[in-house]
Amino acid sequence: MSQRQSALLTDLYQLTMLQAYFDEGMAETAVFEFFVRALPPGRNFLVAAGLEQVLGYLEQFRVSGDELDWLRAHGGFSEPFLAALGELRFGGDVQALPEGTVFFGNEPILRISAPIPQAQVVESRLLSLLHFSTLIASKAARSVLAAPGKLLIDFGMRRAHGAEAGLLAARAAYLAGFSGTATVQAGIDYGIPVFGTMAHSYIEAHVDEVSAFKGFARSCPANVVLLIDTYDTERAAEKVVRIAPELAREGIRVRGVRLDSGDLAAHARAVRAIFDRGGLAEATIFSSGNLDEWKVRELLAAGAPIDGFGIGTALDTSSDAPFLDCAYKLQEYAGTPRRKHSEGKATWPGRKQVYRHFAADGTPDHDVVALEGEAQPGTPLLLPVMRSGRRVAAPEALAGMRARAAAELSRLPPQLKSLEPAPAPYRVEIAPRLRALAQELDCMPH
Amino acid sequence: MSQRQSALLTDLYQLTMLQAYFDEGMAETAVFEFFVRALPPGRNFLVAAGLEQVLGYLEQFRVSGDELDWLRAHGGFSEPFLAALGELRFGGDVQALPEGTVFFGNEPILRISAPIPQAQVVESRLLSLLHFSTLIASKAARSVLAAPGKLLIDFGMRRAHGAEAGLLAARAAYLAGFSGTATVQAGIDYGIPVFGTMAHSYIEAHVDEVSAFKGFARSCPANVVLLIDTYDTERAAEKVVRIAPELAREGIRVRGVRLDSGDLAAHARAVRAIFDRGGLAEATIFSSGNLDEWKVRELLAAGAPIDGFGIGTALDTSSDAPFLDCAYKLQEYAGTPRRKHSEGKATWPGRKQVYRHFAADGTPDHDVVALEGEAQPGTPLLLPVMRSGRRVAAPEALAGMRARAAAELSRLPPQLKSLEPAPAPYRVEIAPRLRALAQELDCMPH
Repeated sequence: MSQRQSALLTDLYQLTMLQAYFDEGMAETAVFEFFVRALPPGRNFLVAAGLEQVLGYLEQFRVSGDELDWLRAHGGFSEPFLAALGELRFGGDVQALPEGTVFFGNEPILRISAPIPQAQVVESRLLSLLHFSTLIASKAARSVLAAPGKLLIDFGMRRAHGAEAGLLAARAAYLAGFSGTATVQAGIDYGIPVFGTMAHSYIEAHVDEVSAFKGFARSCPANVVLLIDTYDTERAAEKVVRIAPELAREGIRVRGVRLDSGDLAAHARAVRAIFDRGGLAEATIFSSGNLDEWKVRELLAAGAPIDGFGIGTALDTSSDAPFLDCAYKLQEYAGTPRRKHSEGKATWPGRKQVYRHFAADGTPDHDVVALEGEAQPGTPLLLPVMRSGRRVAAPEALAGMRARAAAELSRLPPQLKSLEPAPAPYRVEIAPRLRALAQELDCMPH
Repeated sequence: MSQRQSALLTDLYQLTMLQAYFDEGMAETAVFEFFVRALPPGRNFLVAAGLEQVLGYLEQFRVSGDELDWLRAHGGFSEPFLAALGELRFGGDVQALPEGTVFFGNEPILRISAPIPQAQVVESRLLSLLHFSTLIASKAARSVLAAPGKLLIDFGMRRAHGAEAGLLAARAAYLAGFSGTATVQAGIDYGIPVFGTMAHSYIEAHVDEVSAFKGFARSCPANVVLLIDTYDTERAAEKVVRIAPELAREGIRVRGVRLDSGDLAAHARAVRAIFDRGGLAEATIFSSGNLDEWKVRELLAAGAPIDGFGIGTALDTSSDAPFLDCAYKLQEYAGTPRRKHSEGKATWPGRKQVYRHFAADGTPDHDVVALEGEAQPGTPLLLPVMRSGRRVAAPEALAGMRARAAAELSRLPPQLKSLEPAPAPYRVEIAPRLRALAQELDCMPH
């Protein structure tokens, strides 16, 4: 699925603005920053993701001849501008938080410095890529925190919002700590472990459950996880116990079962008892069916003997918070800081850096957003990732990002780890010089 | 963006089931139906969309050599099966509701009849395509009903869940009655009108608003819609009045302005007054900024003089209902009806048809879901669209679907047109023979 991405997967206004910048001879360096204004209600933190996709997009940005022809036919663009657009490549600098890093509201997680046409034209797609992966990594992290040590699998592709969402959700969930996905293409594209056995239709197509179970076990002997809720869960579990010795004689081990409906805690307990009595103490119980982090926590709190969870729709659509209030805003042009004043949407001007302060035990204590270059204690989070359009390092392996996310989640303060909103949000301070600059710009005429 | 779609954009279990069907020699005709179990809370109807994408997918379904290699390396599949998988094409029959048709819970809107491996393997992607387009067309229809006669533009690509979501959302919104989209690629792919002028960054990059306005007007003289809320909306409107005569002398007409923040009704009234006094009575006011169907209705109810609305995130993510409880279920195999009994997820068995009954004035009165072939009055909604893997007709033009949706929305009963939940949901009856069949299957042993 690594096709060249169309440069015209963008908003038309990026191109009308570029026509105007071209006519006005405006090509000085612009600095844009991506940030989330405020966390969605009830969320305590976000997990940065999608940077690799952004860098890939910037590297291959190019308007093709066919695309130029379409723009010509669409009207409104001059020939000299279209010629320049055909030559446009991204040659700017990028600073960003490494994927898997925890962050908070009003903190820039990516900064682009480039001649304004380059920095402007990439806005729409850059937003789409950073927004979605960050949205899903942040959602997935909540299930990871709710179910420590459990097998968590992304089941969401079918209700994800299209192909790219399904694939990027599998990646973001794995990055945040999931064990794998059901989506085969995500295994191919990202090397994520892929899981899956059977649907209800497989059971129903057979004359009875026992033939379905045996048929599957003999076809996929290394992967015998049987779906047992099509008709009657406990009766199906008893059937599994009855056929297990016959399969064992053929060298086939029943690895586990999947429950997908009803009172999962009650069924899991009943099935566990049937299996333990029936010589299948090693068989695991996996559950699925409209799960989210809250239901997973509830099942575990109730002591349900469930070993793993398939989480689908709630994960891939981030159903409780299906978007982030994110923006990619101009902060500086031609060396001068800029600020939008629009009511309720004002931004912090200038090139900024985020400094994280840790307690003695390594727990993050608070962050300070300051102007770049302002002497500040704390650990700077934005790191250079691209200079003059070229990556400063080879693409990071997904495993590295996953390890970073695990470390970041493990050292979060306990009140932020909770699914409930923290009594007080994580503290993000705006440094005094940045506040002063914002005030100064507010007093300037426009 | 019309690349060949990977056949492995699917759940692994489709392939493990296919391995088992292959080993068991199961290749009889299976009938699967796609339906939405229940409408999302607060919704009164849904609008079918995405069929064209499904048919395109079915036509080109093929597992490539590279994909077979990946499956071989992944393990668990036999060589004879992989050889058969490489030959697998979709050669089945498809019946479906035409795109733009209104429908309700428990009504099949697509039925596939094909040898079980073919009908099974397409499940995940078929769900993803029908689900998302139907989700967005249904959401968009609410804004269309809330703002009759107004210009509605899809602004959502940046926060849509990935590239495909942004493109399909533009298409679904246009189908449901929007006037166009900001997404250039959607104009290329689907021939949808594309709209756009400028962002705040364009204004901020200039030394002052007046130079930004004049610069844009001279670069894009046919498309002068100026964004006026960057600093102070009313002062910016006065600047527009001041520069309009100068631009008019150059042959440039200010077509309108866009408001993107603050109290949109109050700003629109103030700007309208400034323009009417200032000789710009013809200039239109377009608004955007976290709008949805509720805010649009509220603005219009308050008499805000707004001519058009850009609706973004709420539309492209269907933020109040980011998914539908849809399913693609086996209803018949080898000539025998099938039924899943899973608690809370039981299905109506057999090949079904939906019959719509209309009142004398053409308003839909109720629907009946019956077994196909059962003699029934009413208008059958599912129509044949593919036979033996081939379309029965050329792809329908988007304009036709849009006209159908407009007709369907206009004749909806008033209580269903409301944004509020209807006092009573639209009546969908299950025909007696279908009920009897379901009961009969419940009594059979498994």
